[in-house]
Amino acid sequence: MFEFELLAEDGQSGARAGRFLTPHGEIPTPIFAPVGTSATVKAMRPADLLDLGVRLVLSNTYHLFLRPGDELVRELGGLHQFMGWQGPILTDSGGFQVFSLSKTREIDADGVLFQSHIDGSRHYFTPEKSIQVQENLGADIIMTFDECPPPDDFNYVQESLVRTHAWAARCREAQTRDDQALFGIVQGGIFPSLREESARFLIDLDFPGYAIGGLSVGESKIEMYAMLDLLKSILPIEKPRYLMGVGTAEDLVNGVIQGIDIFDCVLPTRLARHGAAMVKGGRLNLNNAQFAQDSNPIDTSCHCYACSHFSRAYLRHLVLANEILGHILLSTHNLHFLINLMNELREAILNDTVSEYSRDFLKHYPKPEDSLSVGQQTVA
Amino acid sequence: MFEFELLAEDGQSGARAGRFLTPHGEIPTPIFAPVGTSATVKAMRPADLLDLGVRLVLSNTYHLFLRPGDELVRELGGLHQFMGWQGPILTDSGGFQVFSLSKTREIDADGVLFQSHIDGSRHYFTPEKSIQVQENLGADIIMTFDECPPPDDFNYVQESLVRTHAWAARCREAQTRDDQALFGIVQGGIFPSLREESARFLIDLDFPGYAIGGLSVGESKIEMYAMLDLLKSILPIEKPRYLMGVGTAEDLVNGVIQGIDIFDCVLPTRLARHGAAMVKGGRLNLNNAQFAQDSNPIDTSCHCYACSHFSRAYLRHLVLANEILGHILLSTHNLHFLINLMNELREAILNDTVSEYSRDFLKHYPKPEDSLSVGQQTVA
Repeated sequence: MFEFELLAEDGQSGARAGRFLTPHGEIPTPIFAPVGTSATVKAMRPADLLDLGVRLVLSNTYHLFLRPGDELVRELGGLHQFMGWQGPILTDSGGFQVFSLSKTREIDADGVLFQSHIDGSRHYFTPEKSIQVQENLGADIIMTFDECPPPDDFNYVQESLVRTHAWAARCREAQTRDDQALFGIVQGGIFPSLREESARFLIDLDFPGYAIGGLSVGESKIEMYAMLDLLKSILPIEKPRYLMGVGTAEDLVNGVIQGIDIFDCVLPTRLARHGAAMVKGGRLNLNNAQFAQDSNPIDTSCHCYACSHFSRAYLRHLVLANEILGHILLSTHNLHFLINLMNELREAILNDTVSEYSRDFLKHYPKPEDSLSVGQQTVA
Repeated sequence: MFEFELLAEDGQSGARAGRFLTPHGEIPTPIFAPVGTSATVKAMRPADLLDLGVRLVLSNTYHLFLRPGDELVRELGGLHQFMGWQGPILTDSGGFQVFSLSKTREIDADGVLFQSHIDGSRHYFTPEKSIQVQENLGADIIMTFDECPPPDDFNYVQESLVRTHAWAARCREAQTRDDQALFGIVQGGIFPSLREESARFLIDLDFPGYAIGGLSVGESKIEMYAMLDLLKSILPIEKPRYLMGVGTAEDLVNGVIQGIDIFDCVLPTRLARHGAAMVKGGRLNLNNAQFAQDSNPIDTSCHCYACSHFSRAYLRHLVLANEILGHILLSTHNLHFLINLMNELREAILNDTVSEYSRDFLKHYPKPEDSLSVGQQTVA
């Protein structure tokens, strides 16, 4: 179980294509995983995800712990059964949400005391608790409990790493199920020395895969890409690499050529709910009056259900009327856009044309020095 | 065009099965039409409606006139093209919404001045305007502009009928397209004399179909059924009969055995958005704690997508988390429930077993004298 096979590696860049075997099937890499925060990818049925070619879904430990509760999910047969998704699932550790979503929190060496963003109830998360919750949920890939610090405060990041590393070791110890791949999460902000220290510490613990956390949280794209470039040569070739919370098209392309195998982000479904459609080079904001009489689809070259059947004018109408179908159609399009991009990148790696493909694709975007990193936090 | 063919009539009751030909295909009757208020059946893609066996969709003239505007819809190829639904469409006249949804309104003999519920803008609807808007939208079946009065105020209903009848004649005159079937709407509240007068007036105008309006607005079920019983013997056998805004299971069954051919209602999709699932004999309110650990589907005998894949516990989780997928799945189930009921009723009429079928079905419901009519207005 959890065999990771590399099928092709690009000589020029660090891009690689492979497959990762899990108890719920094979994940072709590189891959983008849509986020099903509360055991549902917002506005999508599992059947729709299959139609789109989704092969991995992420769900959030923090949210499911609070509602409906991980023990209930376990009693009902685990997360796959509960949400009706029989393919591979990845759960995060709850760390990111405890630090970004919950109300007042207190960190100590042992864990984090936090208040639910839903009802204000108080909870204490430790590494052991995070693993217990993730074992109850039963995803194929699970994560170590970590702290996601502000990326540019050296002293704080350094201090935080001590906790995150101790917690990673405790998660490794706490794991009791052998049908879940526990990934370690590399932290270290935007500081090469700390990132390298973090990677080497986790490599010593010998995890079956490595995640890169704490990026796409406000640092510049240059800073983010520098961390990926550094870690490319440190992380072991033979283990899958997962860049957490990254989901703009240009970041996926840049991530892939830096050797990343797995990505996830709420961006495509969150943008959809704000009326924005992802297209090569940027986004169409369908709230804009310029689309009021536009009989074209979002993208004439796109084959998704939305682009095959509906005009920008109709989509704009749905967005302005706040109709659920608007969320459904834009989520469908945005997910199709990223999944299609990943499929094309994988094909290009297998055909040894990924450098040309990436160069052509990135021509449509501003150079990294001109743009800030955008992730979950920065969506309008 | 608009041929209405009766295939079977039940000797005991007034139930009948037939088919009504429209420019966008054949409508098998009796039929239930889901409501796509703003050119979308809420939470449903057109492909999903086809999968459910939907053969007629209703859309609202008042809403589309206000947003996105009927002229825009015409410029974009008409409502079928705009909303991506190539099957038959029925539009109401705007009358009901002008009286129930809009803010301040002033009625005179010529029409109604009203304020938009969206932005407070002022508009004047006349019979001619309603027809013009409906011709721009381009539905297969359109309606005369009527007033929907409080059903139990004899003097007001009598006075209102004068307007409604004059408006019906003006709508007949105003119609310029011959590819739309204009139905007259029988009003008259709960008063047999007024209902009969209204039906006879409209029959003289020789419409290709007749709607029964102003019911399911607060009167008792006994009163509603009495009006249907009366009109059964007055309305011409050879024209389709449409009971507006009625959509509880028991009302559909009672309507069918009183000779109704077409029904529409927001009830199944509105209940869905409130977390309620329609089942034989009533509703399951999935907000209730009793379903928290319930691994059964809504209905073990139901073959809809929701019942084939998900537990009540999962659906309850989606409802409590206000997830769009909850709206999608419950709308799917509720529409399937009513469409399946109509299919079974039609089969029973064709097999000459509709009396037994109806009797068995209605055993699961309280007798009419114990219950108030419930329609669009009374949903929790």
